Amino acid sequence: MQYDRLYARRAARPVPALFRAGAASPAGVIPLTYGFPDPGSFPIEALVAASTQVLRTHGRDALQYGPIAGPEPLLDLLVRKLDAEGIPAGRDNLLVTSGGSQGIDLVTHLLVDPGDVVIVEAPTFIGALQTFRNAEAEPHEVPLDEHGLDVEALGALLERLAADGRQAKLIYTIPTFHNPAGVTLTEPRRRALIDLARRYGVLVLEDDAYSELRFEGERLPSLYSLAPEDCVIQVRTFSKILAAGLRLGYLVVPRELLPRLLQLKVDVGTSPFACYLAVAYASDPPGTLDRLYAHIEELRAIYRQRRDAMLGALEEYAPPGVEWTRPQGGFFTWLTLPEGLDAAALLPKATEAGVTYIPGSSYFACGPGTRHLRLAFSFLPPADLIEGVRRLCRVIAQAG
Amino acid sequence: MQYDRLYARRAARPVPALFRAGAASPAGVIPLTYGFPDPGSFPIEALVAASTQVLRTHGRDALQYGPIAGPEPLLDLLVRKLDAEGIPAGRDNLLVTSGGSQGIDLVTHLLVDPGDVVIVEAPTFIGALQTFRNAEAEPHEVPLDEHGLDVEALGALLERLAADGRQAKLIYTIPTFHNPAGVTLTEPRRRALIDLARRYGVLVLEDDAYSELRFEGERLPSLYSLAPEDCVIQVRTFSKILAAGLRLGYLVVPRELLPRLLQLKVDVGTSPFACYLAVAYASDPPGTLDRLYAHIEELRAIYRQRRDAMLGALEEYAPPGVEWTRPQGGFFTWLTLPEGLDAAALLPKATEAGVTYIPGSSYFACGPGTRHLRLAFSFLPPADLIEGVRRLCRVIAQAG
Repeated sequence: MQYDRLYARRAARPVPALFRAGAASPAGVIPLTYGFPDPGSFPIEALVAASTQVLRTHGRDALQYGPIAGPEPLLDLLVRKLDAEGIPAGRDNLLVTSGGSQGIDLVTHLLVDPGDVVIVEAPTFIGALQTFRNAEAEPHEVPLDEHGLDVEALGALLERLAADGRQAKLIYTIPTFHNPAGVTLTEPRRRALIDLARRYGVLVLEDDAYSELRFEGERLPSLYSLAPEDCVIQVRTFSKILAAGLRLGYLVVPRELLPRLLQLKVDVGTSPFACYLAVAYASDPPGTLDRLYAHIEELRAIYRQRRDAMLGALEEYAPPGVEWTRPQGGFFTWLTLPEGLDAAALLPKATEAGVTYIPGSSYFACGPGTRHLRLAFSFLPPADLIEGVRRLCRVIAQAG
Repeated sequence: MQYDRLYARRAARPVPALFRAGAASPAGVIPLTYGFPDPGSFPIEALVAASTQVLRTHGRDALQYGPIAGPEPLLDLLVRKLDAEGIPAGRDNLLVTSGGSQGIDLVTHLLVDPGDVVIVEAPTFIGALQTFRNAEAEPHEVPLDEHGLDVEALGALLERLAADGRQAKLIYTIPTFHNPAGVTLTEPRRRALIDLARRYGVLVLEDDAYSELRFEGERLPSLYSLAPEDCVIQVRTFSKILAAGLRLGYLVVPRELLPRLLQLKVDVGTSPFACYLAVAYASDPPGTLDRLYAHIEELRAIYRQRRDAMLGALEEYAPPGVEWTRPQGGFFTWLTLPEGLDAAALLPKATEAGVTYIPGSSYFACGPGTRHLRLAFSFLPPADLIEGVRRLCRVIAQAG
């Protein structure tokens, strides 16, 4: 069988050499690669109780096919949670998904034909880049700085595209505790971004995976809350605040878009078991979100400590010329090497020295990003983070 | 915001009026619509024990991000299960998916560019039709009879396409206990189908959702087992043999295709929790599949009784000129009305008389199928099935 003649274009193209975070680290190597939650934080016994309760009380619904948009108890819980965040949403603004990834995939399918323009941050989330590639989108990059997306550069890009008669379909952005860059979009820039989206008639896909994990500083309004029922779709997840292994996320969308997204969601509904489990876990006492909020407080403390450990080690060990971002929340910091160094070229030496990271080039749609690398502080305990940073800095110093 | 200008072609096209099985039935109405498992069959207490064990023993893996292809314990269980079915498969032939639906979606994305030819049975599974529509495939139909897909008609179609210089990408078929038709492809036709696929260089997507639920007659070789590492991809699910609400399925694929499918699977892995739960449930005693097999035996008895109730009621109440299929397994029978009657036109009267079904036209890519309707015997207890069929037959008799 000659499979080559049968592939769709997206499958026939060579696979870009993206870093696969799932690959296991060699023994003795400290992986600063994993943007994974702290496995010690999973609330095992509370989930045992919740799953027992769900199976015994709601088993007939939780183990059955469910509504495509999600079971009503979860939709109602999300309405309350979003209301507390200043986001006006009803059931008809919500679509429960299999993690945030399916949300990004569905929005891409809603908007993107092959060759369509999608605007992405440089750098941005690898999974989103892969989704846009699979859809054969044409990515255009806008740079970031320590205040998030450069909205002036975005304005210039939109102007150029308009002058060329091209309609961008989508601006994909991670405004809060960016993956991989760790930076957060300021409020004035948030408002400027919304203004641009309105002026050029383009949708903003706001990936808000980390905003609940703020360690310090003031909460900023989400993009969706600045323009409800308008030019923003928000993608959310339970992966960082409860358990990635449940694969549970949701989209917050302008009402008018929901029927179109339902048509594209051919999964016969997101796992009702996972949905009921999240509700049973979060709603203690019933009708509240108290247990989930208490858990999020614990997570903030865990990740704050880890962030502090990593940034402290960088302060202590980084050779001159190395720069990094100072995230107020989330999972990552983004490191820039001194001029002349290449993060991918350095990786074998780092691995030999007992530490790994993800080279920055993987996070760029157009590139090159070779001087950057991502460090995750979410997955490992502070002592490992400190030792990993120490090893990394020694390798950088020796190469510089 | 004007969303219309932003939609991709697939979202801009009008949605065909497919029946949505998720819609609730009015009170007092017997729904013969739901192709859902018997909710009374869910093994609640065994799943309570299994989920408790998974959380306590494997919580750090089950609640974490997992490998895209699926966790090793589940892959290894599937290897053993497939081996017992005569399917030679290793880990590198397997991709765990979120239900069978994601499997169909991934294969479609692997092969189909807009305008590509996909061959489907007439009738076929609504979810697959929607997936092919979303991919902008060009569907070509091949009729079924009581022995399954008409392979002569398939041969003629492939010949015509070849003469037109067109390469079909995919033949989508449900050879065993067909949804919606209830028929099963005979062994000679299975072999003829494989021969045709080889001759014309086209992949067969074998949807094998129901084969474990055989009530009588001899097991037939699956298409995949007739051509391993060749021209067949098999899509499977735990939805009918364990719990639809876990959204757990898998693809069995020629080894060479796996990396391409992994590239397209942008979901950061199927729920590890669901995967570990299925393993913990099935493997009792550990290392065996005994509990799953015992459960499947119970399901066979339940659905056999329901099938008998429905077919018996049809024998008793159906007016002359009505025909139906006699499934040896699965969830459905397919009914053909006397000439001149239209199943969709009859539905309001049937609903008024207290019974609903899915009109046949929803199951055709090209149509019309107006004389057919699908009856599901999986979801309701025998007494309801009998009363539902009685009501339906009275409506048909009055309309005839």
